[in-house]
Amino acid sequence: MPYRAPVDDYTFLFDHVVGLDQVVATERFADATPDVTTAILTEAGKLCEDVIAPLQRAGDLHPAHLENGVVRTSPGYAEGYKAIAEGGWVGIAADPEYGGMGLPMTVTTAVNEMMSAACLSLQLAPLMTQGQIEALEHHASDAIKDLYLPKLISGEWTGTMNLTEPQAGSDVGALSSKAEDNGDGTYAITGQKIYISWGDNDFTDNVCHLVLARLPGAPVGTKGISLFLVPRNLPDDNGNAGVANTLKVVSLEHKMGLHGSPTCVMQYDGAKGWMVGPEGGGMAAMFTMMNNARLGVGGQGVGAAEGAYQHALGYALDRKQGKTEGDTGTIIDHADVRRMLMTMRAETYAARGIALMCAVAIDMTTATDDATWKSRAALLTPIAKAFGTDIGNEVAGMGIQVHGGMGFVEETGAAQYARDVRVTTIYEGTNGIQAMDLVARKMMDGGEAAARIFDEIEAAAEAARSTFPKMAEAVWQASETLRETTEWMIAQNHRVRFAGAVPYLRAFARVLGGHIHLASALNDQGGAHEKVARFYIQRLLPEHDSLLAQAHAGDYDVYALTPEEFAA
Amino acid sequence: MPYRAPVDDYTFLFDHVVGLDQVVATERFADATPDVTTAILTEAGKLCEDVIAPLQRAGDLHPAHLENGVVRTSPGYAEGYKAIAEGGWVGIAADPEYGGMGLPMTVTTAVNEMMSAACLSLQLAPLMTQGQIEALEHHASDAIKDLYLPKLISGEWTGTMNLTEPQAGSDVGALSSKAEDNGDGTYAITGQKIYISWGDNDFTDNVCHLVLARLPGAPVGTKGISLFLVPRNLPDDNGNAGVANTLKVVSLEHKMGLHGSPTCVMQYDGAKGWMVGPEGGGMAAMFTMMNNARLGVGGQGVGAAEGAYQHALGYALDRKQGKTEGDTGTIIDHADVRRMLMTMRAETYAARGIALMCAVAIDMTTATDDATWKSRAALLTPIAKAFGTDIGNEVAGMGIQVHGGMGFVEETGAAQYARDVRVTTIYEGTNGIQAMDLVARKMMDGGEAAARIFDEIEAAAEAARSTFPKMAEAVWQASETLRETTEWMIAQNHRVRFAGAVPYLRAFARVLGGHIHLASALNDQGGAHEKVARFYIQRLLPEHDSLLAQAHAGDYDVYALTPEEFAA
Repeated sequence: MPYRAPVDDYTFLFDHVVGLDQVVATERFADATPDVTTAILTEAGKLCEDVIAPLQRAGDLHPAHLENGVVRTSPGYAEGYKAIAEGGWVGIAADPEYGGMGLPMTVTTAVNEMMSAACLSLQLAPLMTQGQIEALEHHASDAIKDLYLPKLISGEWTGTMNLTEPQAGSDVGALSSKAEDNGDGTYAITGQKIYISWGDNDFTDNVCHLVLARLPGAPVGTKGISLFLVPRNLPDDNGNAGVANTLKVVSLEHKMGLHGSPTCVMQYDGAKGWMVGPEGGGMAAMFTMMNNARLGVGGQGVGAAEGAYQHALGYALDRKQGKTEGDTGTIIDHADVRRMLMTMRAETYAARGIALMCAVAIDMTTATDDATWKSRAALLTPIAKAFGTDIGNEVAGMGIQVHGGMGFVEETGAAQYARDVRVTTIYEGTNGIQAMDLVARKMMDGGEAAARIFDEIEAAAEAARSTFPKMAEAVWQASETLRETTEWMIAQNHRVRFAGAVPYLRAFARVLGGHIHLASALNDQGGAHEKVARFYIQRLLPEHDSLLAQAHAGDYDVYALTPEEFAA
Repeated sequence: MPYRAPVDDYTFLFDHVVGLDQVVATERFADATPDVTTAILTEAGKLCEDVIAPLQRAGDLHPAHLENGVVRTSPGYAEGYKAIAEGGWVGIAADPEYGGMGLPMTVTTAVNEMMSAACLSLQLAPLMTQGQIEALEHHASDAIKDLYLPKLISGEWTGTMNLTEPQAGSDVGALSSKAEDNGDGTYAITGQKIYISWGDNDFTDNVCHLVLARLPGAPVGTKGISLFLVPRNLPDDNGNAGVANTLKVVSLEHKMGLHGSPTCVMQYDGAKGWMVGPEGGGMAAMFTMMNNARLGVGGQGVGAAEGAYQHALGYALDRKQGKTEGDTGTIIDHADVRRMLMTMRAETYAARGIALMCAVAIDMTTATDDATWKSRAALLTPIAKAFGTDIGNEVAGMGIQVHGGMGFVEETGAAQYARDVRVTTIYEGTNGIQAMDLVARKMMDGGEAAARIFDEIEAAAEAARSTFPKMAEAVWQASETLRETTEWMIAQNHRVRFAGAVPYLRAFARVLGGHIHLASALNDQGGAHEKVARFYIQRLLPEHDSLLAQAHAGDYDVYALTPEEFAA
């Protein structure tokens, strides 16, 4: 069963659950009418089905590799990237002034999810470039924007993010790459960066690196970090890629998955760069785009989940084995195979809904600059990232299990989904860091943004009571319990919060998922959405209770063992 | 941090939790005194630390491969297998009459777990051979036993199991390999078998296959299946490996992990074999050894969990990153890293305890032929298999997460644990099949065996109340809730039971884990065991509630979607 773009799911969620109409009602996104959106999704979906999905296995079987210092990409990836760029999907959310489509993040999230489902390793290239486009739009000078944005948006050039160094991973502030003023408006960048996704390729004229580095005498920690744009090839007088800059790919990582995506160790030896944003403003610039980048990675998780679900479903509808409890004669009639497939479907849908809720909040922030939407987007972002990628991993794991022995054999492709998606819980801030962000920084408002969401969930549940009394009560209760734990958590110190952060985040996502499924059931009574919602609310939502028990357990047990007892 | 054999954990569990003293009190296992057992574990542990663990990466980096029809094994595996055999570990549980050590399954389980932790792909070779030894001991003629057992036990020859065919996986009864009577006491075996672990090697003189096949005119289904011993090389007049039999390795599977273990497609072309057990008794013979084989795979999961835990712990005690909430200056002081490591440790310990409880019941069945022990062993086996391997996967996944970006890079070895252990939830009966076995076949006694376990857990919890009132109450309540669900489940039809089987099995394991941790805390008050028990009972045990909600949810939601709605 080849990948089929779930366009109907997106439009259903847009119309009935996340309220894309609010976004379209703004002046900024007035063009994104339902007709336009559906046409966009249909076109992108067709590209994903016909062009991108067939590249998925090739990336795994023929990994990107380094040949005399040059990255050689997987077969078909050059054509795939070209097709993505020509469809306008690199610049889907970018400023029309530079060639972008200017569409809402909500639509972008759906399109990016489809590309992720079709071929995660290739999709990471446009995702990185989208992030760079956004950073430049917000922080670069007009000269840089005029030169770089059209090339990035058209797909002639690609972009990367260079944050991590061997000693500076989660703790970005510990980085030591240096930037020295050349006195001519440019800087000389020196240092080594690791884990640079798509740090090079052999199909675009240029690769543009956004590099975090320190100027001489800059303060220690994050405050001393500035951001620089460092192209592989220096633009010539016509703005085309010219002579090579003094930077190189030292090596590629040998990874568990995502083999089609070259993960580079980059060496900068006095490479020429241009500062983006003010001196010492590197982290602030990064934070501007962090929400979108994190949501983007959450969407990768959802996409991988959808891909793995469809792949397993295709196998289950085809494979005959044993006497079944149903009547198709294939393994989908075995109760436990169905339980797995229903779980995969219900979880993927919940994670998708959360990502789109987050995207709507980002769009409303962009379009209205309303502080309420802004805090909502900030709150939902770590949940969308962590839950989306956790579900990506869990669903891909179940996909292997549905295949039985064939799942462990690489030829079926089931294992690749699990190997590829594995990194998504780690990069762009580990899911542990997302959870810490949620319970610390995102609760600095005293829980106001969270409380508004609980109010909304409970009001919706009240309204659903007459139609679905049991489901509505379950969602209402879950929200109320989450509200209590949230209030408790805000009263704790950081160490206590952090000890319960990961289960708390998942409980939050569980409740949001219940809300999303309930709204979907209301708008599809007797249909597939209601059936999947019943499964989710009866079987998966109850997990929030044991998660909250963990969230509520304090830090004592977590810190009880001494390091010596650990190592004994 | 290189692998360290957790000998103290085994002896603690033997002495204080699972009651190995009952086993030693029998005539059959009277020699397995604590002194002997500790010496055995120490010696096996040393071998695992010094000889086997260093082979783990080599198997992944230099996979077994086929060279002109011959399997070439990974570097060092030949020497590793020789060292295992010379230590007596292939024949650890085998009959001393043929050179075995005759030790209890409880001790065997601990030794096999250590070998799994050190190098899962190599350990699969002795595990398969142990299974064959057991099958031959129970079902083969004296002539076959005299000829084969000493060679298998000494490690001169290895053994395999041949059940699966492309159309006959979980449904073994669908197999179609043929056996024809040669009229001289031998049979001609023809057919193709897949997923044959260690189907060949280049370090023993012979590889002996136990093959399930059908005689002409045999009834369809499992009743028509007989078991045959089919050696790669036919024994000569001196009982040594002689001329080649008409069988071959057609190909090796390209797998997600376990690359050091050659997974063979075997072709039998009228290969000469000897029947083991009576005509049509193939499945019965397989069932005799099924308990031990399933427990063996459960132990592989526990071993992989221990290996991954130690590996992640070593990283966490060394890696410096960010401002921590503790005082070692390494990432183990971050609350969420600690939460992960504590979870890994507590889960691994619970799964280990369950495996050893199961092993004690198997030993008591062997030594006393007591029906109560037999039904207990039968009940605990699917739980030990499924929970051990689920935990193996979960802990290995957390191991990657603890490593951050380094976890996704293969060089650290963290990913290998996750890739290698992935198959254990699938082979030797998928975990879904284990759960179906638990709620159907193992409940045919009306839940008596389960009820005896609940009685035991609750009595122990009562006795613990004065020391640990909160923990004792939590375990008592969990057991009581599980008892109620068990009674409910027994009253349901199979389809309803199967729809809740997997969460039910996990809830059962959760409660057993609570019991094991509580007993451990009682015997180590104020020590590390109590601290880990508190973590488990407060944070992990509550999951049983949401699991039981799933177990209790019936089959309606699982079967609500039509196949058309699934595929839409």
